[in-house]
Amino acid sequence: MKLYTYWRSTSAWRVRIALAWKGLPYEAVAVPLLEGQQHGEDYRALNASAQVPLLILDEDDAAGRPLGIAQSMAILEYLEERHPTPPLLPGHPWRRARARQLAEIVNSGTQPLQNLATIQRVKDALGGDPDAWVRHFVGRGLASLERTAGETAGTFLVGDAPTFADVYLVPQLYAARRYAVELAPYPTLTRVEAACAALPAFQAAHPDAQPDKPGV
Amino acid sequence: MKLYTYWRSTSAWRVRIALAWKGLPYEAVAVPLLEGQQHGEDYRALNASAQVPLLILDEDDAAGRPLGIAQSMAILEYLEERHPTPPLLPGHPWRRARARQLAEIVNSGTQPLQNLATIQRVKDALGGDPDAWVRHFVGRGLASLERTAGETAGTFLVGDAPTFADVYLVPQLYAARRYAVELAPYPTLTRVEAACAALPAFQAAHPDAQPDKPGV
Repeated sequence: MKLYTYWRSTSAWRVRIALAWKGLPYEAVAVPLLEGQQHGEDYRALNASAQVPLLILDEDDAAGRPLGIAQSMAILEYLEERHPTPPLLPGHPWRRARARQLAEIVNSGTQPLQNLATIQRVKDALGGDPDAWVRHFVGRGLASLERTAGETAGTFLVGDAPTFADVYLVPQLYAARRYAVELAPYPTLTRVEAACAALPAFQAAHPDAQPDKPGV
Repeated sequence: MKLYTYWRSTSAWRVRIALAWKGLPYEAVAVPLLEGQQHGEDYRALNASAQVPLLILDEDDAAGRPLGIAQSMAILEYLEERHPTPPLLPGHPWRRARARQLAEIVNSGTQPLQNLATIQRVKDALGGDPDAWVRHFVGRGLASLERTAGETAGTFLVGDAPTFADVYLVPQLYAARRYAVELAPYPTLTRVEAACAALPAFQAAHPDAQPDKPGV
């Protein structure tokens, strides 16, 4: 498989964690987002949303064209269905749902309000302070996450093995620190983050370990 | 099951479609969002995110407390796993992924930038024009959706049966019209919307059919 990625994209980072956790080899193709390469017609032909991650499968369609999947959650669900072991979802139906719920608090409830395109709009079209905007929405998201996780957390956000919830948590906390969000009110989240940081799959997926990081 | 809902919430609407499509009976509990009831401590004890939808399952945990799931995507995946027939995902792995990808273009890529809390922040904290903000982000999301759907659309966005993608499409187009977004550039989306409108499950889930709609 081939993964279009960017070292500091929190969405691509989630997919890197899942691929590493499941031990799936892939070729990484860096898309330098700050240079705008994702808006070029070549890339938009692959992903009309002009975003990373984009996973190209190791199978073609009937016409011989490569099959691609974008959107981190769609990719994670695909990997879970096709490569279920080791899992990133619990076995119990309600706990599976809670892992997805916690992941979506980040995926749809927090990160979209803090990504590059949103921040640029706040700044350029509205003359707003991007830092204040991000701190408001990331703080709100992390507060929901902390309180909701309280019902299921063990070593990780849902029980004692990592799930989608942890895959979404770790990059979101990294982004929160970039914007100086105060993390003391979220002791469950930072405790689980430390547990994730001890795992080789999370280490391999970290931005600092990516070859497209400047200076690496 | 019990669904906490609001007639015009696009996120609750998605879950109403899925429940109706699968023929699952439920008790609807209206949460009047404009009155702020979702921010009360009673409701936040059920859903710390202070949002609808919230689905309460017909089973309790070991301590006898009701089990709840929030976030539309987590609820839809739960319903699909527990009540797979009739399905809302295709059988083929890549097509399943594409149905989820299209749904996420709405779920994480569009709706969060247009929901009540975001619009209020644009207006109250930044003094921005909410209509211009919404038209920018909804237009961008629908353009991605139209182009991406071109690779899989039949009668519906992925093939000839409704999937998660259509469940997310229909409420998003309703929201787009509220903000006078021009829909002519999206002929695939409006064609599929019309196909959905002919289905009883989509009719039953429509805001106009909800008892908490004022005047109904």
